[in-house]
Amino acid sequence: MPAQISTSLERYLPVLQWAKTYNSETLTSDLVAAVIVTIMLIPQSLAYALLAGLPAEMGLYASILPLVAYAIFGTSRALAVGPVAVVSLMTAAAIGNLGVQDPAQYALAAITLAFLSGVILLVMGVLRLGFLANFLSHPVIAGFITASGILIATSQLKHLFGIEAKGHNLIELLASLWQNLGDTNWITLVIGVSVTGFLFWVRKGLKPLLLGAGLAPRLADILAKAGPVAAVAVTILVTFQFGLDTKGVKIVGDVPMGIPPLTTPSFDLDLWGQLFVSALLISIIGFVESVSVAQTLAAKKRQRITPDQELIGLGASNVAAAVSGGYPVTGGFARSVVNFDAGAETPAAGAFTAVGILLAALLLTPLLYFLPKATLSATIIVAVLSLVDFSILKHTWKYSRVDFAAVAATILLTLTFGVEIGVSTGVAISIFLHLYKTSRPHVAEVGLVPGTQHFRNIKRHQVSTHRSLLTLRIDESLYFANASFLQDFVYDRVVGDTELKNVVLMCSAVNEIDHSALDSLEAINTRLKDMGISLHLSEVKGPVMDRLKRSHFLEDMTGRVFLSQFDAMTALMPVPSSRISS
Amino acid sequence: MPAQISTSLERYLPVLQWAKTYNSETLTSDLVAAVIVTIMLIPQSLAYALLAGLPAEMGLYASILPLVAYAIFGTSRALAVGPVAVVSLMTAAAIGNLGVQDPAQYALAAITLAFLSGVILLVMGVLRLGFLANFLSHPVIAGFITASGILIATSQLKHLFGIEAKGHNLIELLASLWQNLGDTNWITLVIGVSVTGFLFWVRKGLKPLLLGAGLAPRLADILAKAGPVAAVAVTILVTFQFGLDTKGVKIVGDVPMGIPPLTTPSFDLDLWGQLFVSALLISIIGFVESVSVAQTLAAKKRQRITPDQELIGLGASNVAAAVSGGYPVTGGFARSVVNFDAGAETPAAGAFTAVGILLAALLLTPLLYFLPKATLSATIIVAVLSLVDFSILKHTWKYSRVDFAAVAATILLTLTFGVEIGVSTGVAISIFLHLYKTSRPHVAEVGLVPGTQHFRNIKRHQVSTHRSLLTLRIDESLYFANASFLQDFVYDRVVGDTELKNVVLMCSAVNEIDHSALDSLEAINTRLKDMGISLHLSEVKGPVMDRLKRSHFLEDMTGRVFLSQFDAMTALMPVPSSRISS
Repeated sequence: MPAQISTSLERYLPVLQWAKTYNSETLTSDLVAAVIVTIMLIPQSLAYALLAGLPAEMGLYASILPLVAYAIFGTSRALAVGPVAVVSLMTAAAIGNLGVQDPAQYALAAITLAFLSGVILLVMGVLRLGFLANFLSHPVIAGFITASGILIATSQLKHLFGIEAKGHNLIELLASLWQNLGDTNWITLVIGVSVTGFLFWVRKGLKPLLLGAGLAPRLADILAKAGPVAAVAVTILVTFQFGLDTKGVKIVGDVPMGIPPLTTPSFDLDLWGQLFVSALLISIIGFVESVSVAQTLAAKKRQRITPDQELIGLGASNVAAAVSGGYPVTGGFARSVVNFDAGAETPAAGAFTAVGILLAALLLTPLLYFLPKATLSATIIVAVLSLVDFSILKHTWKYSRVDFAAVAATILLTLTFGVEIGVSTGVAISIFLHLYKTSRPHVAEVGLVPGTQHFRNIKRHQVSTHRSLLTLRIDESLYFANASFLQDFVYDRVVGDTELKNVVLMCSAVNEIDHSALDSLEAINTRLKDMGISLHLSEVKGPVMDRLKRSHFLEDMTGRVFLSQFDAMTALMPVPSSRISS
Repeated sequence: MPAQISTSLERYLPVLQWAKTYNSETLTSDLVAAVIVTIMLIPQSLAYALLAGLPAEMGLYASILPLVAYAIFGTSRALAVGPVAVVSLMTAAAIGNLGVQDPAQYALAAITLAFLSGVILLVMGVLRLGFLANFLSHPVIAGFITASGILIATSQLKHLFGIEAKGHNLIELLASLWQNLGDTNWITLVIGVSVTGFLFWVRKGLKPLLLGAGLAPRLADILAKAGPVAAVAVTILVTFQFGLDTKGVKIVGDVPMGIPPLTTPSFDLDLWGQLFVSALLISIIGFVESVSVAQTLAAKKRQRITPDQELIGLGASNVAAAVSGGYPVTGGFARSVVNFDAGAETPAAGAFTAVGILLAALLLTPLLYFLPKATLSATIIVAVLSLVDFSILKHTWKYSRVDFAAVAATILLTLTFGVEIGVSTGVAISIFLHLYKTSRPHVAEVGLVPGTQHFRNIKRHQVSTHRSLLTLRIDESLYFANASFLQDFVYDRVVGDTELKNVVLMCSAVNEIDHSALDSLEAINTRLKDMGISLHLSEVKGPVMDRLKRSHFLEDMTGRVFLSQFDAMTALMPVPSSRISS
């Protein structure tokens, strides 16, 4: 095969790259990692399906074929794909909007959502639109994840209490919980609270204990990861032994045994229309989450991931989920870290995990009959509370009030109006605040630092200036949002200043002048000309100058363009005189 | 009255300022201007009401009380407020969306739209939100006005042909015209085409002719402005004389005589909800148009207008329109230029124009009975075709492809989908393109220009560098949209470069580092640290440095912050060696 075709194929099928060097050593590493991730993934996939409002087996199905698809198309060597908490919550919110009651219709909507999300990701990947994810600022993501964690934990409290509760935002959820608190099933609550406590203890206390008992660190780690599996096993046994299901403890019940079914998404265009925005949000949030984990892990091994190919990998996973009875999936944070720490060398580890989950679907499902839902909810609560991190509020408050406003708004809106409004408004707010900031740029009147060729702000430094010369350093690119600001600023400064003969705009920090700003410069030039003042530019960057040369402005300008501000001062101040600003 | 209260009152009631120095001289100037504007405004106000789908008298009513309100609250001394073409088209589109058939309901919706628009403008004025108008880039406005001109002219063709046609975009309009072309009333067409030709001739040919005949320029000007009034008078006479209304020529018909009625807008919240977005768009477009005219005219006389007070002036005008049987108004371009050229000295000219229109409403309305609608349409067509200007396409194509894309999209979308979708998508596109541009900033690898302290792009200049030192000048503020770009750029550049010991980020053009970018800098620092490379910053601006000091980054950073890039090079390159880049 010619080298070029092979390279192009390798770009779209990263499996061809790593498969070439696959050997027994990488196989062993991948197998060990796969076993550990499988142990972790079984209870998680059941629990997240529950969170999404779907039958438990759909969680298992979403953890089989999608993992194989990612192993073929994905570029991260450590990313573990599958159902994750935030996307499961978003799935519940998306289908909740439809008002579907029938479980079969609900499942079909979830499958369709996975399909749409997969197609969106694939299209974004082929068109290389990965940069769109950059419009989600870090503070907005952090705020969104924290608020989602709170929403998820709150939504699971009903299973801990064994009561009914509904809602897609914190207020609805709390009101609904409060109303039904009288129906609490005390046995369920005991199970739920015990498992939650146990899992927290496993997280914090078990590993040090095992290490203290002389166990090898590796083994201690695996045992600690198996905590949720132990909780599942013990609560199944207890429920079965004491017939707790007849005493009001809600159980998972029948989980079909066998390989994932072949499913087809709905091709009803009305449904597509209703789900499209949700699918888009799920795709972007899933992608952002997944890529940031993948990048962090790749960096540790000096590897690179290709964001646009990641879109294709995740897109393929979601389409795979849609045709095999799953629901939207993405790369999970905790799971990928475990996979990495356990020594996964290639995406094959994910394929081996898929085999593990397939075995579970084939063999273990009858054992899950007596599994209390409270156990799964406890698993979710313990997992998502680690997502809740309000420190971003503190950091942004200290560093930048604008970022703080974006985080605070995202958290509040997500809690109050749910995930979809929360994250979209968060993005809109951060874009708006960015534009607002740049619409009122910092403009400094500068003068020469004596004995140097440097120019500094007259308000911060002792510099020399001259009455006939005004130099303004504009600390921002000039574009439509600040074009009229510049005009107003110059007019306000020069009005009534009768000694002024020359105005220099120092453009060292101007990276762009768009057409609106060009119009403003022309207006300033005309206005100053009427007042008998010349307009000059200095330190204009190459690309900006190239563009200005394509307009009439440079010909119409009353003054000159100076390469350096020092040249401008030398040329425009023939009779040196200085005043030291206060 | 204490000085402070008086100043504050004068801010909100500019009339108090100029009324103090009002004298017989300004009175004369204002009266002359008012007469000329009244002559121009009578046919225009009737025609624009027709364009908005409203009875002719509403155009007159919108030209009385609103002008008085602006005279009290507005800051521009030359702006002539009233019904204008683009806002009338937007009014037709807004009410068209409601699907109202009953003329009384249609008129009530227009009154309500004026009220909502007035309230929005007042709120924006009090909250000083005038900067929002800056998010409309000049190319988007230019494209929108051009496309609106085409839509308006096309929408008037039906009256010229005397046929029916409907539609809020070019395709619908043309299809509808084509379909009904068989119903053409030939007498109407003759009137329409003659008036159109006459008005074009008046614009281009009459004034030189009059000047050639020895008339004073001032008088020639007034006569040329009276062209539309002459067309109105002549076609009324002809229609009356030959009973053309019985031969299928559509006439204006009964126009109620008397002072404007006292009206109240609807307070139906459903209607408000349906009209809100339209009212917002009308407010912003009207404000942008009005302020740019006002600013241009004020600049000619070295006066200043206050954009936030302009919001209040226009808001008051629209509320005045709503309570006196009018519809949305704003400052008109052609009319204001005429007002200015005719010598208007203060906003009182507007109040006098209002008196002129009031006299017309009291005395002239019976004479308008036989006015052919074709005459009004011809007036509109001639007026709006001067708005159509495709040169913005040429200018932006030459200057900036991004601006070109925004104009082209705005024109196409406005023509294809109507004014509301056109202008909102135009704004969204220009914001998106701006973010996209800044999300892939120019990053230059720089070296020292020998014999100076200046650093330039190694690709453009002959500069000295050293293998162990990489200096990257980032030509953009660092924020969420380009945070990951920077990370990728640095990683791609340093990977495999084994001789590299120091990386300097030269920040002379970095006007901001937001929290997302701070995260990226931290990630870059950690990554380079793992590779044994130190990260340094140079030429960090004061405000950026102030903020960095409030984070942990400077403590965690492996390298130093240098005041100048020359300091950085001196410190980091102990054994000088140079290579000249190609």
